[in-house]
Amino acid sequence: MNRLITFEGVDGCGKSTQLKLAAQWLQARGEEVVTTFEPGDTSLGKEIRKLLLTGEFVPVPEAELLLFLADRAQHVCEVIQPALASGAWVLCDRYSDSTLAYQLAARKLGARTVNIIEMLTFAECRVIPAMTLWFDVPVSVAAERMKKRMQAGEKSTRLDDEAISFHERVAAAFTSQFEKDDGRIVRIDASLNIEGVQAEVESALQKRFS
Amino acid sequence: MNRLITFEGVDGCGKSTQLKLAAQWLQARGEEVVTTFEPGDTSLGKEIRKLLLTGEFVPVPEAELLLFLADRAQHVCEVIQPALASGAWVLCDRYSDSTLAYQLAARKLGARTVNIIEMLTFAECRVIPAMTLWFDVPVSVAAERMKKRMQAGEKSTRLDDEAISFHERVAAAFTSQFEKDDGRIVRIDASLNIEGVQAEVESALQKRFS
Repeated sequence: MNRLITFEGVDGCGKSTQLKLAAQWLQARGEEVVTTFEPGDTSLGKEIRKLLLTGEFVPVPEAELLLFLADRAQHVCEVIQPALASGAWVLCDRYSDSTLAYQLAARKLGARTVNIIEMLTFAECRVIPAMTLWFDVPVSVAAERMKKRMQAGEKSTRLDDEAISFHERVAAAFTSQFEKDDGRIVRIDASLNIEGVQAEVESALQKRFS
Repeated sequence: MNRLITFEGVDGCGKSTQLKLAAQWLQARGEEVVTTFEPGDTSLGKEIRKLLLTGEFVPVPEAELLLFLADRAQHVCEVIQPALASGAWVLCDRYSDSTLAYQLAARKLGARTVNIIEMLTFAECRVIPAMTLWFDVPVSVAAERMKKRMQAGEKSTRLDDEAISFHERVAAAFTSQFEKDDGRIVRIDASLNIEGVQAEVESALQKRFS
């Protein structure tokens, strides 16, 4: 059984916190869980992440997409596939939907009429999430949360530092991907407080997998 | 006018030496020439090159292809396109044909039925060489030349260190790409001495561009 669950949404939507809580919730039920993230959760990926996010380099949009896909390919082969094969749940912070929202829509690469689905299929070795939790929150709320995290000492990434219009295109893309989806993506109301969001996540997991 | 000329062949075929000689020959005729190479001739590409070739990392074949394409995209946008736009000749050591020979054929990725042409077109922003010089030499001759270079102190790359069967698949792919080609690729007999190869290159340039 495919037990890959991806956590998606704009930065500040709360997905990383909820991923940890969902892992604990599954583990408390005796399930084996692997938590992971993109980009950067392999030794190669860690280096690719630096090229993408520190701001030291400014990849052109095409190179940015290809670097994210290279990280994806290594991640799928080294981490996700072996974990799934061992029967574990894999909870992954960002996956294909982020690529579509950030690298394709927000960077306006779609206009280049690239067959992104074929490129994703190639990079992902056909590993498709069993379920995707989309943490939907207004961009203004997410931006406010990010501001607090930066004030608390977290370092922003090159993508965090993009203009608000960029983040609005990302959010619009997530919405559009949800609307076109055939049942893989579950919308979570991420404007609730942590406990409220957590309850929605657990209910979604129970509904799909019990 | 498109003045991008790519230099292709197995390692040890002599293409880098011939590229320098061709640049001098063009410059002596008053032409403006930019010489460049892949992977690694941008600041981002330099880092990507390290990930690909030092041997510190072992990218899976999919990640390897995507990293080479990311380097390509940055290189085309930052170096090749501006140089062509300024009216210069661009002599580039390795380009799409190397991707097809090394990352697709030798790694046997073609069997994954990936639409490589579409991915190349995307990464290359439709910048296609006006002419490709393919330095054809038996793998055994190239291997002997590489051995001498290593003995003279040159460091081998992760791809140099692949088995002889890998390099034979690369060579076979170059041959097959030449046979399928519609006139872009010119075969140069690279088993001749430097002066002999140089004469073939100059004759090819004169025939195509005079």
